[in-house]
Amino acid sequence: MSNAQRQMSIGMNILGFGAHAAAWRTGEVPPTAYLDVGYYQNIARISERGTLDAIFLADGPALAGDVGRQPAGRLEPTVLLTAVAAATQRIGVIATASSSYNEPFNLARRIASLDHISGGRAAWNVVTNAGDAAAQNFGLAGAPLHVDRYARAEEFVDVTLKLWDSWEDGAIIGDAASGRFADPARVHAIDHVGRHFSVKGPLNVPRSPQGRPVLVQAGSSEGGKALGSRFADAIFTTQTTLADGQAFYREMKQRARQWGRNPEHLKIMPGLSTVLGSTEAEALERFERLNSYLGEGGLLRQIAQRIGVDASELDPDAPLPWQRIGPVNEFEKGSHGFLEAQLNLARAENLSVRQLSRRILVGHRLLVGTPEQVAASLEEWFLAGAADGFNIMPDSFPSGVEIFVDEVVPRLRKRGLFRHEYQGSTLREHLGLPYPASQYEHPAAASA
Amino acid sequence: MSNAQRQMSIGMNILGFGAHAAAWRTGEVPPTAYLDVGYYQNIARISERGTLDAIFLADGPALAGDVGRQPAGRLEPTVLLTAVAAATQRIGVIATASSSYNEPFNLARRIASLDHISGGRAAWNVVTNAGDAAAQNFGLAGAPLHVDRYARAEEFVDVTLKLWDSWEDGAIIGDAASGRFADPARVHAIDHVGRHFSVKGPLNVPRSPQGRPVLVQAGSSEGGKALGSRFADAIFTTQTTLADGQAFYREMKQRARQWGRNPEHLKIMPGLSTVLGSTEAEALERFERLNSYLGEGGLLRQIAQRIGVDASELDPDAPLPWQRIGPVNEFEKGSHGFLEAQLNLARAENLSVRQLSRRILVGHRLLVGTPEQVAASLEEWFLAGAADGFNIMPDSFPSGVEIFVDEVVPRLRKRGLFRHEYQGSTLREHLGLPYPASQYEHPAAASA
Repeated sequence: MSNAQRQMSIGMNILGFGAHAAAWRTGEVPPTAYLDVGYYQNIARISERGTLDAIFLADGPALAGDVGRQPAGRLEPTVLLTAVAAATQRIGVIATASSSYNEPFNLARRIASLDHISGGRAAWNVVTNAGDAAAQNFGLAGAPLHVDRYARAEEFVDVTLKLWDSWEDGAIIGDAASGRFADPARVHAIDHVGRHFSVKGPLNVPRSPQGRPVLVQAGSSEGGKALGSRFADAIFTTQTTLADGQAFYREMKQRARQWGRNPEHLKIMPGLSTVLGSTEAEALERFERLNSYLGEGGLLRQIAQRIGVDASELDPDAPLPWQRIGPVNEFEKGSHGFLEAQLNLARAENLSVRQLSRRILVGHRLLVGTPEQVAASLEEWFLAGAADGFNIMPDSFPSGVEIFVDEVVPRLRKRGLFRHEYQGSTLREHLGLPYPASQYEHPAAASA
Repeated sequence: MSNAQRQMSIGMNILGFGAHAAAWRTGEVPPTAYLDVGYYQNIARISERGTLDAIFLADGPALAGDVGRQPAGRLEPTVLLTAVAAATQRIGVIATASSSYNEPFNLARRIASLDHISGGRAAWNVVTNAGDAAAQNFGLAGAPLHVDRYARAEEFVDVTLKLWDSWEDGAIIGDAASGRFADPARVHAIDHVGRHFSVKGPLNVPRSPQGRPVLVQAGSSEGGKALGSRFADAIFTTQTTLADGQAFYREMKQRARQWGRNPEHLKIMPGLSTVLGSTEAEALERFERLNSYLGEGGLLRQIAQRIGVDASELDPDAPLPWQRIGPVNEFEKGSHGFLEAQLNLARAENLSVRQLSRRILVGHRLLVGTPEQVAASLEEWFLAGAADGFNIMPDSFPSGVEIFVDEVVPRLRKRGLFRHEYQGSTLREHLGLPYPASQYEHPAAASA
């Protein structure tokens, strides 16, 4: 590997059957594959063959969607990704979990355990979970206010980092002969007392291979950006135009600097959905076959739902009904910025509703095309200062990840943008992040 | 397999390095093996070779013990056992988790996910966690009262069963052609509103292979016995004399009847620690080698700590200082009945302190002897109405489980007491438990 060339990071986002809402209907896998650990292990193994940085699982603690018309529910990510880690050697595993509906001691411990089990490949994607359905599974009538969820998230992350740091590096002596196991002076109560949590510690899991498992964040609201730029190692984001991607990238790097961080240690990873074919025609054919399950009406309804208008208000061949769409408020920015990103794309390219319905999947930028076109677009964003890497969302699994790994990855390698083999063994190493010191480490303790 | 002969169940309890406090010092495995998933996978594979019913992990959400002198902390069981399930095919996996310091939606979901991933091999061992250290990691100054912990546990289990039942069997249609995924009439909000929890549901994981994962309980207090006899599929218990074992067995079966349950569906599994050798002399030698790391003083201190007196008050060659030991109260009964069981043994056999120190490991009955002697003892308890199975705690891993599987299991098989191969694929099937119906199932829904 040339040291001169900056390398991109790639995460594979396993969204059930794929990013296309009809992916479960193609017969590629059975309709219950999303409950089968082997389905995920297979996708992870293919991704690992492509030396991708990580696989990623989104999550929320409530049954979402219409169970009558879509596979609904999902296996819990920390548990599922442990089984995936057991079936792989190098690829990172990024588990989404809620800071609003967990206790920091429990979650810090599970992620640290996954880090031990995976040999340093674990990450936690912090989400606060908007929406009432999740709240109603945890004793609340509705979701806490955005500002309160983010205040809790900030304290949750702070407690989590303290717990992960509570065993210093080298605290374990492990001298069986003398019976000395650890240096108690290097295992710290954290004695956290805050507005949301009081946690004594130390964690009951010794420091894990990455020191601190990787932190991922995906909020696009002010609260989300503040949290992510301060604590996250990687930001997943929705950006649909290069200009927006560049602006977001600049803003987040600047925010990281303001927190006193090295901006290179905050990786910006926009999402990209892909529908790939050997030729453009083949890709379009693949896409239209998937779309045919939904029909034009179904595609229209997807747009209508995202924008929050009735489908009957949309004319497929006209632009979006801008007069019906107000400015995007902070709450709407919260859900990964999906709404704003779509509106920006439609406005920037003056798209009709029908055109827009073919440029977006699950709220993210979509490319329907050849491996060469996808590789070129990734390169463009990467070199133009809009991305350090990408969160890839293929239309349908496992074929979508197979084509990406077999056809796109070699083209990125040829361009000198992506590793030919893993250079390290931990997710931090894949992402080019330094090993973090424990906040409790100090010269006195270290020499004690 | 003869249908005429009732078969025993056997669980392998992985207590860190083994039941003997010095097991980590023998050099059998490195002092950090308890953080290595391969260590647990190896023990599980050996146990599976012996067609044991399950492996079991105890747990508590706080750092316990003296980190200076003992390996401390443990990987979180639901996560660790997922990795173990991924490396095995048939053996059950029993995860301990706290009803006091979890939310039912999260825990029900994780255990259901583990049940999916393992193909129906998951169990939850319900514990309420006495002691202040755990409470102080969750915003409390000290542990809630015993009665409050058990009231919460009872409601927690009730909510968990509702969530596991919230998707009826057959709710998933999975018709990709028509796009019909599930029958919404068979996916139920649970709308639980209680003193401790308000949970709307349904669970965001469809019904798992066992319908309901297996429930295990280990309390010996009144609250524990009431909870276990009402809800549990299996009871782990500490019984040191056959008479006590028989009395407990009779009591729990009677309690199950009073709840309207078939007492055969409540499996009573006392713990047994083992130190095995080809001859009695060899077993004793193995035991004394382990004891030598602690010395007579260390063994004395173990007894002193368990009984709650100072070691200086104990004369190794005299009986326990009965005048210093009051009646066992409900709180002390709570911790698995360890204290009471030890006192009962010492009293029944009029043991000196030194003798007692060699008859108990981690609070459980200990047999130091040959495979033949252990097999005979298991048979005696099993046939005398003191046990449906056993929770085995070898002195030291992995050698302790290897000897058990290679030497004790064949003797149990020869006596017609234990399976030669797995007859089913789920833990319920191993334990001889029926598949449970969803509480939301009714003829109208079933025929809808």
